Amino acid sequence: MTREPYRVAAAGLPERVTVYEVGPRDGLQNESVVVPVEVKAEFVARLAAAGHRVIETTSFVHPKWVPQLADASELLAAVERLPGVRYPVLVPNERGLDRALEHGVQEIAIFASATETFANRNLNRTLESQFTMFEPVVARALEHGLRVRAYVSMCFGDPWEGPTPVAQVVSVGRRLLDLGCYELSLGDTVGVGTAGHVAALIGAFGGPERLAVHFHDTYGQALANTLAALREGVTVVDASTGGIGGCPYAESATGNLATEDLVWMLHGLGVETGLDLRSLVETSTWLATELGRPSPSRVVQALAAGLTTERDVKE
Amino acid sequence: MTREPYRVAAAGLPERVTVYEVGPRDGLQNESVVVPVEVKAEFVARLAAAGHRVIETTSFVHPKWVPQLADASELLAAVERLPGVRYPVLVPNERGLDRALEHGVQEIAIFASATETFANRNLNRTLESQFTMFEPVVARALEHGLRVRAYVSMCFGDPWEGPTPVAQVVSVGRRLLDLGCYELSLGDTVGVGTAGHVAALIGAFGGPERLAVHFHDTYGQALANTLAALREGVTVVDASTGGIGGCPYAESATGNLATEDLVWMLHGLGVETGLDLRSLVETSTWLATELGRPSPSRVVQALAAGLTTERDVKE
Repeated sequence: MTREPYRVAAAGLPERVTVYEVGPRDGLQNESVVVPVEVKAEFVARLAAAGHRVIETTSFVHPKWVPQLADASELLAAVERLPGVRYPVLVPNERGLDRALEHGVQEIAIFASATETFANRNLNRTLESQFTMFEPVVARALEHGLRVRAYVSMCFGDPWEGPTPVAQVVSVGRRLLDLGCYELSLGDTVGVGTAGHVAALIGAFGGPERLAVHFHDTYGQALANTLAALREGVTVVDASTGGIGGCPYAESATGNLATEDLVWMLHGLGVETGLDLRSLVETSTWLATELGRPSPSRVVQALAAGLTTERDVKE
Repeated sequence: MTREPYRVAAAGLPERVTVYEVGPRDGLQNESVVVPVEVKAEFVARLAAAGHRVIETTSFVHPKWVPQLADASELLAAVERLPGVRYPVLVPNERGLDRALEHGVQEIAIFASATETFANRNLNRTLESQFTMFEPVVARALEHGLRVRAYVSMCFGDPWEGPTPVAQVVSVGRRLLDLGCYELSLGDTVGVGTAGHVAALIGAFGGPERLAVHFHDTYGQALANTLAALREGVTVVDASTGGIGGCPYAESATGNLATEDLVWMLHGLGVETGLDLRSLVETSTWLATELGRPSPSRVVQALAAGLTTERDVKE
């Protein structure tokens, strides 16, 4: 019997997607266990070896707020930065930028809010005054030849204001692009968005150009929302190895979309990623031991349990 | 500030979807805890009260194979069957049909295989001879005025044969429809399928007519695959309350797509279901206590933990 190809061409999807790996930063900063710097360095090295070409490595946020990443300087010294791999670092303000420059960082990310309340609570700024804070950070970074990515958080809703108006997200996003950011990462920080909302937001921007998506799986929507974004032409998707970065309320809960679940979908759709799924799963299984909890990724759980493998269903 | 509607119209999706609830049957038969019959009866009553109009209630498979559902007769005697609600029962063979008829069941489901190996292992039949087994079951059921639904399992791949050829699934499905089944439930029993494969399979059937989908979330793909099926016009989606029916290998693992995660997406898309999400979540939270493990549903976990509520993000 002749077997049809497993990779069924999916009309209208991009041929290649860049998985922007946020596990070492967004993942580890939301885990309760503080991981030793040597383990983090090995984690980053394993991600590069698995094929990642963008690995958000750490953050220069003050250790008072994010003690999990207090070792940012040591980590950057310990990580061997390979040619062809980008190692962006989150930078909250000018002091953070100074430290990034000291460490020879070539790409930074800033973290903005799409809603007034979250700007107040997370940045201690108004929605408007956050731009005053970011403007000199971006300007100086560009002067030094760095690339700057902007996260826009709470793009779909927040717990205080309800759904975020699409036009408000577009307004915030456009101002960040105007400052000189090369890309916006549209974040569903609380995970409440659904697929039609995703399509509407990308449409309101006039299309996918310079847009990435960053979904949290708190309500189980992350992968469906990613599929909706791909159909709108988005080609950069944020994800976290093994789905680390869980919410505090349940051991099995997940914050970030798991890289492996995303890659399973993308490879099934015939979309190229340059990633080796088996290496990613091995890394997540190793990291789960370090974190002392099972990976929330469905794919990691299934493959680690020795169920069907990607090879089994492909060949 | 004027707020855009949360329910962003999603072009090309059905206006209304029937959620075919399989929790009491497919869910409970795959849980390790045996639930008392009174609890099952309350479970079914709660599902109807939450708005479900189709609740697959139990199975007449031999108790040797599925001890969890050995109380099928007692349960059917205990359940108050409400007008306007369908209570289908899985029936493996003619003996099962006899018992269903004794209990005044008005709708049955049969469970077929799309692959040779699974037909051998699960039905002790060849792919071909399963039709010989089903033919008299369906014929007699129709004579008695019953509706017959056919599950087609392993539609996307199985652990022994790899990906299932689309044409083979269509061939099996057409023969079941020809026997007189009113609907096929296309099952991804091991959860390996991805969205392009879903679209291709529905396309190979010539469209969504008489097709339902039944996804397992073993690889995290269930909701994205559902979205793909909706885009192909499918309007009947199987799901299990709270995602019960887990695989044995991990406490947090899930087998079935969780009804609540599906409903969150559908309501977000503006698709009507007739279901009250809050009641569903309350039922899942109650059932999780009976089962002694947390619900694998992301929505149940998030709402039960008092994070943002559906109302919070909708109003």
